[in-house]
Amino acid sequence: MTIRYPNGNAYRAPATSTGRRFPSTYTTDYGKRGMTLEEELNESNTYYELHGLAVVHKKPTPIRIVKVDYPKRSAAVIKEAYFSTASTTDYNGVYQGHYLDFDAKETRNKSSFPLKNFHQHQIDHMRACMTQGGICFAIIKFVTRQEIYLYPAAKLFACWDAQETGGRKSVPYADIAEQGILITPELQLPVPYLKAVDQLL
Amino acid sequence: MTIRYPNGNAYRAPATSTGRRFPSTYTTDYGKRGMTLEEELNESNTYYELHGLAVVHKKPTPIRIVKVDYPKRSAAVIKEAYFSTASTTDYNGVYQGHYLDFDAKETRNKSSFPLKNFHQHQIDHMRACMTQGGICFAIIKFVTRQEIYLYPAAKLFACWDAQETGGRKSVPYADIAEQGILITPELQLPVPYLKAVDQLL
Repeated sequence: MTIRYPNGNAYRAPATSTGRRFPSTYTTDYGKRGMTLEEELNESNTYYELHGLAVVHKKPTPIRIVKVDYPKRSAAVIKEAYFSTASTTDYNGVYQGHYLDFDAKETRNKSSFPLKNFHQHQIDHMRACMTQGGICFAIIKFVTRQEIYLYPAAKLFACWDAQETGGRKSVPYADIAEQGILITPELQLPVPYLKAVDQLL
Repeated sequence: MTIRYPNGNAYRAPATSTGRRFPSTYTTDYGKRGMTLEEELNESNTYYELHGLAVVHKKPTPIRIVKVDYPKRSAAVIKEAYFSTASTTDYNGVYQGHYLDFDAKETRNKSSFPLKNFHQHQIDHMRACMTQGGICFAIIKFVTRQEIYLYPAAKLFACWDAQETGGRKSVPYADIAEQGILITPELQLPVPYLKAVDQLL
C-alpha cells in the first residue's frame, strides 16, 4: 500500500546513513527507474535478509563529528561534522557460512571502468579479507548500458597492480563482461548478486 | 615515538566515527588507564589486522544527515544531523574463514549485567547471523571489577527470551563468569578476544 501525504504525494522513507529503507513494496514502483546502485543493493539485501538467505548490510558513511548541541528535552543535534574516508569497503556480511566483502561502483563510461573509482585502502582491505578466507568482489554497474557485473577481487587486484608498471588506468568493458559474472534483475530483487557469488564458490 | 605539540602535550589522533586511530605505539601509554572498551577493542583489532590474524572493524556510528553546506574551495560541512539507531551490532569481520559478529558493552554494575544494554534489533541481527553460520557473541566489561568476558550469543538469547516470561532483567555476574570466557589483557593487546573465540569454535 502506498502511504500518501494530504497533497497526494507518495511518502518515501528518508534514507539514513545506515542505508536502510523500507522495502520497495511500500513505495510506488515504476520499474526501478532512477534507482541508484546503492538503493538497488539495499533493497536486494533487505530481500535476502527477510528470506533468510544472507545477512549483508551497507556500512554507515563515516563522519567526523566536531560539534554537538544537547538542547534540553530533545535529541542531540550535530552542528558541525565532516565526511571522512572509510577504511574498509562499503558492504559486508555472512552468506551460508561465508564472509562476504565488497564494494559497489557505478560508471557512466561505456567502454571501460576507471580504476580511480577505487582507493588503495579498499584494495588493501579486500586483500586482507581474502587472506582470512573471505569472499571479495566488486559490483560494477555500467549505467548507460544498464548492465551490472560481479567482478572477482583477484581480477581487480591484477588490473590495479598493473597500473604501477605502466598498465591501463581502467578495465575495458569487454574484460569485465568476459571475466565477470552478469547479474540480471529479477522481480523484487534488483541485484540478485548471490547467484553470481554461488559461481565463485 | 611520541609526537608532541610545542607546549609539550602529546598528540593523540582524533577518534573518527570509523573508530580508527593510530596504533597506541604513537601515543603515551600509561598502562591503558582510562581507555574505554571501544578504544581497547579498536587497538586490539588494529593489532590483529597488522599481524594478519583477523580483519575486524567497528562500524561507523549511523548518522541521519539533514543539512550539508558546500562552501567554495573547501570540504562539505554537515550543519545539521542526528544520531540514528544502528540496525546491526557494532563489530564484524572475518577470522580464518569464520564470520564474526559482536557487540561490546560496559557496565559499572558489580553484581549483574543489565539486559537493557541490548536492543531487540541487535538480538535479531545476531540470531540471523548465527542462522547463516556466523559466530556471534557479546564482549562485556565489568568496569569496577576490571574484568572482560566473551559471552556466547546463545546464552544471551536465553536470558533475553526469559524476560518475556517474567525472567530477570539482568544477567548475574556469577553466570557470566561461569558461562562466559574471561579475556585477560596482554602486552599490546588490551582485549585478546580471538583466544576466547578459539574456545567457541
